[in-house]
Formats: sequence, structure tokens, C-alpha cells
Amino acid sequence: MPTGELLGFIAGAICTASLIPQIIRVFKLKSAREISLLFTTLMLLGFFIWIAYGISFRLPPVIFWNAIAAILAGTLLFAKLKYGR
Amino acid sequence: MPTGELLGFIAGAICTASLIPQIIRVFKLKSAREISLLFTTLMLLGFFIWIAYGISFRLPPVIFWNAIAAILAGTLLFAKLKYGR
Repeated sequence: MPTGELLGFIAGAICTASLIPQIIRVFKLKSAREISLLFTTLMLLGFFIWIAYGISFRLPPVIFWNAIAAILAGTLLFAKLKYGR
Repeated sequence: MPTGELLGFIAGAICTASLIPQIIRVFKLKSAREISLLFTTLMLLGFFIWIAYGISFRLPPVIFWNAIAAILAGTLLFAKLKYGR
């Protein structure tokens, strides 16, 4: 993999993975009052549009990372709805 | 702007902008206990690597959106350090 491509791969992996500790924290504390509902909803919407973009330009890494990110954002949204009040 | 490009523009704008209500919420509640420090730090690191990727491939929109995103993630990290305990 060329250096540039590798950078994009690492950046996407880190940004996507960053959601994991946030999800763990909310489930551990059983509280998501401080998590913004608009944040989780907009982020999820953004990832869906990125997937559409990836399909439109046939970019498998964009589709792949944003599908993972959408699952994670969906999990955070679930946690917000469950523990958010 | 072709439809595909427009999708990418909108996706980037929404994902980046999603951080704004999260930042507002933390500053309003003056509490960031539920915000994961690892989440904000990894996300910020990821945006910096995206900027390096954008510079490497000369992609001004990638540089632009990730610079904005890095400023927002930096603000959330600041809020976490200030209100996080």
C-alpha cells in the first residue's frame, strides 16, 4: 500500500475506532445525559451519506469504514435513547 | 458540482457539524464526565492524519473539512479537560 493510501487507511480506522471508548464509557456509566442527541443523529446521517458517496464513486474503503462507523454511531444513539434522560 | 461530489461535500459538512451540538451541550451542562477522553483524543489524532492525507494527495476539501473538524474536536477535548472530572 503506498504511503498516502496507508495514511487514509490509518486515519479512517482511528476516527472510526474512536467511537468505541465513547460507547463503552456510556454503557459503563449507564448514563448518556451529556451526549447530544443531535450529535449522534447528525453523525449517523453523515455516515449514511458517506456510504452513498462511496457507492457512487465505487470506493470500497469509504463504504467499508463508514458502514462500521454507522454501526458504532447507531450503537451510541441506542445508548443515548436508553440512558439519555 | 456533480452529484457525487455534492454527496461528499454534504456528508463531510454534516459529520463535522455534528460535533457542534455536542460541544454546546457539554459547555451548557458544565460537565463532561460521560465524554470519553480516549474518544476525543483519538478523533483529534485521526483528523490530523486525514489532513496529512489531504496534503499528500492535494485534496483541498479533505484538508479544509478535517481542519474544521480538528478545531471542533480540540474544543471538545478542552471541554473534557475542563469539565471532565
